[in-house]
Parts: sequence; structure tokens; C-alpha cells
Amino acid sequence: MDTRNTVASIITIGDELLIGQTVDTNSAWMAQELNAIGVWVHRRVSVGDDRDAIWQALDEESKHARVILITGGLGPTADDITKPLLCQYFGGRMVVDEGALANVRHIFQMLNRPLIERNLKQAEVPDVCTVIQNRRGTAPGMWFEKEGVVFVSMPGVPHEMKGMMKGYVIPALQDRFRPAPILHRTLLTAGIGESFLAERIKEFESTLPRNIKLAYLPSYGMVKLRLTGRGDDPRMEAELQAEFDMLRQLVEDVLVTDEDKGIPQVVGEILSSRGQTLSTIESCTGGYIGHLITSVPGSSRYYLGGAVAYSNTLKMALAGVRPDTLSAHGAVSRETVLEMANGIRDRTGSDFAIATSGIMGPDGGTPDKPVGTVWVGLAAAGREAASHFQFRFDRQRNTELAATHGLNALRKFILV
Amino acid sequence: MDTRNTVASIITIGDELLIGQTVDTNSAWMAQELNAIGVWVHRRVSVGDDRDAIWQALDEESKHARVILITGGLGPTADDITKPLLCQYFGGRMVVDEGALANVRHIFQMLNRPLIERNLKQAEVPDVCTVIQNRRGTAPGMWFEKEGVVFVSMPGVPHEMKGMMKGYVIPALQDRFRPAPILHRTLLTAGIGESFLAERIKEFESTLPRNIKLAYLPSYGMVKLRLTGRGDDPRMEAELQAEFDMLRQLVEDVLVTDEDKGIPQVVGEILSSRGQTLSTIESCTGGYIGHLITSVPGSSRYYLGGAVAYSNTLKMALAGVRPDTLSAHGAVSRETVLEMANGIRDRTGSDFAIATSGIMGPDGGTPDKPVGTVWVGLAAAGREAASHFQFRFDRQRNTELAATHGLNALRKFILV
Repeated sequence: MDTRNTVASIITIGDELLIGQTVDTNSAWMAQELNAIGVWVHRRVSVGDDRDAIWQALDEESKHARVILITGGLGPTADDITKPLLCQYFGGRMVVDEGALANVRHIFQMLNRPLIERNLKQAEVPDVCTVIQNRRGTAPGMWFEKEGVVFVSMPGVPHEMKGMMKGYVIPALQDRFRPAPILHRTLLTAGIGESFLAERIKEFESTLPRNIKLAYLPSYGMVKLRLTGRGDDPRMEAELQAEFDMLRQLVEDVLVTDEDKGIPQVVGEILSSRGQTLSTIESCTGGYIGHLITSVPGSSRYYLGGAVAYSNTLKMALAGVRPDTLSAHGAVSRETVLEMANGIRDRTGSDFAIATSGIMGPDGGTPDKPVGTVWVGLAAAGREAASHFQFRFDRQRNTELAATHGLNALRKFILV
Repeated sequence: MDTRNTVASIITIGDELLIGQTVDTNSAWMAQELNAIGVWVHRRVSVGDDRDAIWQALDEESKHARVILITGGLGPTADDITKPLLCQYFGGRMVVDEGALANVRHIFQMLNRPLIERNLKQAEVPDVCTVIQNRRGTAPGMWFEKEGVVFVSMPGVPHEMKGMMKGYVIPALQDRFRPAPILHRTLLTAGIGESFLAERIKEFESTLPRNIKLAYLPSYGMVKLRLTGRGDDPRMEAELQAEFDMLRQLVEDVLVTDEDKGIPQVVGEILSSRGQTLSTIESCTGGYIGHLITSVPGSSRYYLGGAVAYSNTLKMALAGVRPDTLSAHGAVSRETVLEMANGIRDRTGSDFAIATSGIMGPDGGTPDKPVGTVWVGLAAAGREAASHFQFRFDRQRNTELAATHGLNALRKFILV
């Protein structure tokens, strides 16, 4: 641990995190925001809606960190444990906060709903905290300080927490600690295994300066490489950039992007810069490629849409796939995905088209075409290409891999 | 904490978890599996690739729990820290495991790739552990025991970890601890706020027996209610069922499902049981509804597919939306989504069709139709319906809400 950095712990509260009903996405988002201002997250802890467990976590994490961000355990039905506990932990008493009360009243007025006692109680806070107003919900946030450690309690609802972080917590932490920067540079490679990549760059890795760290992040069958520079040496940023440039040269032949972005965004930027358009026709991925593409703001500039041709009938009706092709080669075949891609491209008038057809599992596999068999078809003016993949995982992961690798095949096809 | 239950902690290792580059989905999955056999997860902790932090986490968590599951920190490039540390922590020395070595050789043979030194090192393990063979990758798992506490170390790659959990760890934990069951019953409501729900069932909640606990889980603008029963009293299961039946009656008018499943599965089961079919035409949701529907295994029985009509041209070409409708009412309107739904239903011959059109942000809003405006159109033989939603969040959440609420509107439309 680099002691020049301000160190944080994140505590998330809720039984739903411990029984696996909810995936904790808050922590990852908070960690990104903290990193961006130079606060290093040393630990993340999840505990249940349990008084002793929460109290213990506060005690323990305050030994590790100077900043403790807490989410969850607030809200009209969850208040009963966390708020009185925080009040006692920091030695205060509960009072009504006029700002929070006005906010609760305002929200209920807007929703045109009657206020009930339970909602009014949300405006009560310990008198030893600074209240963080919630512009997106009824539960206020709370900022405490004790023996030089800052504790911030926020609701677990992601968009409420995010509003408080952006609007108050991040600027206030910058003000309070003036942390030294932590910088990350990330690139994405495809088509090379983690251990081969490691062999190729082991000399580079061994010569990295002490304050720059390399990490390997396998991701959907690709590998991300991340360089992290820490500390307040003013030369660190330039040094990090120089090392990153060297790393990029070493992996140039397998490089997808030298920024921390996903393939949908990379494909979108290529199309956008060329003023070209894309359509999709998805069988096995069921709309997931369209979803990934349209997750990027502004995708309507280059994405026209297309078809989800889950049934054979729709492969014929929406893309003009010939019945003969389906009966001779099957729906999961080079011939079918090429006809799908060309068919949807003709019908939409797009510059490029991508088609998928495969068997995602758990059922539907045959000895010839086992579960995980995926064909991707690509079409452009006067040319076409098809790729075959064999994934070995469950339905969800096979779908993710098919979409990501399909989009990477499209990226290479566009750039040819 | 109910001491009659076996208590576990989950430790996840990796800087990527602390800088927010990766969302920890492993913990939620592991927690579900542990719960199912009656092991209660008391805490989840994430630490970085840092010797001291890992050592400290092992020390601390062994005070809280009798079972400690560890993921991450293994793999061809990550081995350097975790494995020697575990070896030292449990007082062993590194030896080659013949089973793990054969597995590494087998995998590289299958991939037709040369073996390098780095890969062979993966077969080395501390001689004080029981080796858990990895059928899905090269890094073996390790089972240690120390002062009555079981420590299991597994790779962080989800499908490798899952293979070891299902194939070895879960049965071995059952064998070792014979834990008392933990049972959950969950229902999903829509159309009622959390605080109103709480008012409605507060008498019910106050009369719950000590070993049954109620939790509220807000989810995409809906609320899940979960009853959890713990302990080895043989009457617990019947008692839990009786309480759950009572709860279900109290919320009957707002009930979506009385099982722990999502709306796509609920819609699928209704269609499946009736032998009816569905098609989709998505503008603002960009394929996400199709993706949710096809995430359910066997969805090809009732889902035909449809169109992603992101551009107006495709709304006309693929669903026959009239140019006059688009120019008079705009793409985001009752009139357009009804024509889309009826158009795609006609073209696919499905029993039901759902259409979406909206403005997801961050750009594209107008005073009349601000960001978050969504219209959902529904069509069946001889009838149609449209719903208007106004979401207030970011692009991703608006998309999720539009898809979930759209599918719930479809569910009600089918059941009319």
C-alpha cells in the first residue's frame, strides 16, 4: 500500500448482498470515482442488516482507512437498524433536518401521494452529522468525522448514491484530503492467451519503475492490460505515458483499443468517423448485440437497427434466407449467416451488417453442432465473411462471448 | 447471527475489484450456492493483489467464520502472490501435483499450443492442501484446514470457480458441516411504493416468529419481498410456507409472481403454458427486450423474434409504420408504437407483439418529450394497448426500466 495515497474502505450493507440476491454494482462505481480523484480503495466489505456486524465493520475498517463510504441500510423500511446505530456510534441524538423534511414533502407532492409517518421519519438524522441532501429520493446522506476518519453513509439505491457522490461527496473529499493522483492506462488485446502475452512482455514488466504496476485482466476471452501509476511525483504522468506507449508497441498486432472502452464503443467510433452505418440480424444472441451497440449514447448516428430472427420463419421473412439453404445446411451454418447478413444489409441499406446464429444451451446441441457452436456472418458492398466459434460455457456466457467476439470480427472486417 | 448456522466469509482478491474495473459477480453466485445448503454468508471482503492485505483478511475472516472461500489471485500471471502466501500461511512447501500437471498438459494439447514454463508452474501447490482439480482451466483449487476453519482458494474466472464449487466444494462442505437449512421465499410486486407496502403489511411483520425475517428489495421500480427462515427446527419449512401464504394474500392485487424469478421468465411461462407466441419490435430498448426474453432457456418455443427498428426508415420498412404517423405524432408516440406492434405482429404471425419507442438520453430530449419518455405498444388479435412511462435516470437505467416495465405491461395485457 502506497501511504502517500489517501486510503478508503467501502462498506455495503444488506442481507440481499450476502444471500446473493443482488450483485453489488455500487462498489465498483464508487471505486472508480474515488480512484479518479486519487483515493485508493484498500478494502471492500459487505455485511448484513445486523447491528453487531455493522458496528464491527465500522470499527475494523476505521483501522484500515481514512475514508469509509457506506451504502445501504437506509430507506423507508430499512432505516430501523442503520440510522440509530450510526447515531449511537458517533454519540449523537436524532433530530429532524429541515432540508431533508422539505425534500421528502416535495417528492411526495410531485408524486401526488399522501405522506405517511414512515416517510417523515426519513428526515430524522443524528445531530452529529453533516446532512447530504438527496435530490433523487427521500433518504438523506450523512457525513460523520471521528478521530480523523471520515464516514459517509448513503442509500443503496444506485442512482441516489451516484447523485450524492457526484454532487457532494467527491468534491468534499478532494477538499478535505487533497489526494495525490492515481492514473490508469488500459489497452485491450484479442487473439492471444494470457500466458503468451505475459511471456511476450516479461522483459518490459521487469523494467517497470516501482510506482507503476502492470495488471492482466482476462475479459470475455480477451485480455486487458492495465498500467497504474501512483504517487505525487509530478513526472509520474509522463513516465506512465512513456511506459504505456512502449507496451502498446509490444502488442500492436493483437491490439483492439488503447483506451479503457468496450468493443461496442470502438466499433461505433470507427463507423461514426467514416460516416458509415450498420444493421444487425441476430438469432442466437437474441438482441444482445443491438443492446450493446445502443448502450453507447449517440449510436443512432450509425446504427439503423435490424432484426431478431430467432425462428427460421423470420430468417426467411425478414432477411430473405432461402428455405433450401436452411434445409441443406441448417440454421447454424456459414451459408445461413451469410444470407442473413446480406439479406438484412439489402433491406436496410446499411454499409455493414452482422448476423449471428448458434446454439447457446443448455439444450439443442448435437454431435455435429454441440452447445456453444456459433456462426457470425458479415456483409459489406461486394464482400462477405463468416467466422466460426466454439464456446464451452453456460447460456449467459456463451451469449456474451458470441456478441463480443462477433463485434470484434466486425471491427476487423470494417478495417480491412 | 444465528449460531446454529454454519457461517462463511467470502474473500475476493484483485486490484480490478478495488479500482472498479470489474464488478464482483462471483460473490453473489457463491452466496446463493452456500445459502442453498444452509451456510450463512456473514461477510464478503475484497482486497487487492497485496501480500499484507490478503494475509490480514485471512486472519480477520477466520475470526468471523468457519468457512472461508477465496477467489482470484490465481492464474498464469497472478500466481506470484497468492499461492506462495497461502503456502506460507498454512506452513507448507510447494510441490508439483501430478493431477494438476496432467490437466495443464491436456488443456494445452487440446488447444494445440506449446507449453511454457509459466503454465507448468500452475501445477505447483502447497503440500498442506487438498487439490481441487480444475476441469475448465489450468489453475487448480486448494482446500486448507486450520484450527477448525476451512479455507478454499479458487481462480477468479467465473466458470472455473463455478465448476469447482458444484463439483467439489459444495458437496464437501455439506459433508463436513451438515449445516441446518436456510430457506427463502420471495415474491415480486409492481405498482406500489416501498413505504405503502410497508404500511400495508406492518401488522403481518410484527407477528412474524423470531426465526423468520422479512426483507424489502426495491428492484427496477418494483419491490421484492423476501421471507427467510433459519435454523434446524423441523417445523420451520411449514411455518415459513404458512407465513408466505399470508403475505401473498396481503399483496395479491399488486403481485407479479410468488417465485424468485424475473419478469421475462414469468412472461415466458404464461406464453408457454398457453402455446402462444410473441414478437418484438424495439426502438429505444435496442434489442434489450429480445435479449431478456432469450436469456431464458427454451424461449424459442414462444419467441419468434422481430425487429430492432432504431431508425424511422426501419420502422416503416420492417413494420409498415406509415410516414404520416411519424410526421404527425413523431417516433415517440402512442400512434407509432401501436402501428409498430400491429405491424410486426402481422408480419411474424405471432399471437402477441410488443413495441418500444422512447428517448433514453443523455441527448435527444425536448420540452414536450424529455429524456426518459417511453411509449410501449402492445398488440393481439383484435385488440391493442399503449402505455406511457416517464423515467428520470441515466441511459442504462432508463433502458432497463423501459424493458422491465414494458414486459410487465405485456404480462398484464396477455392475462386480460
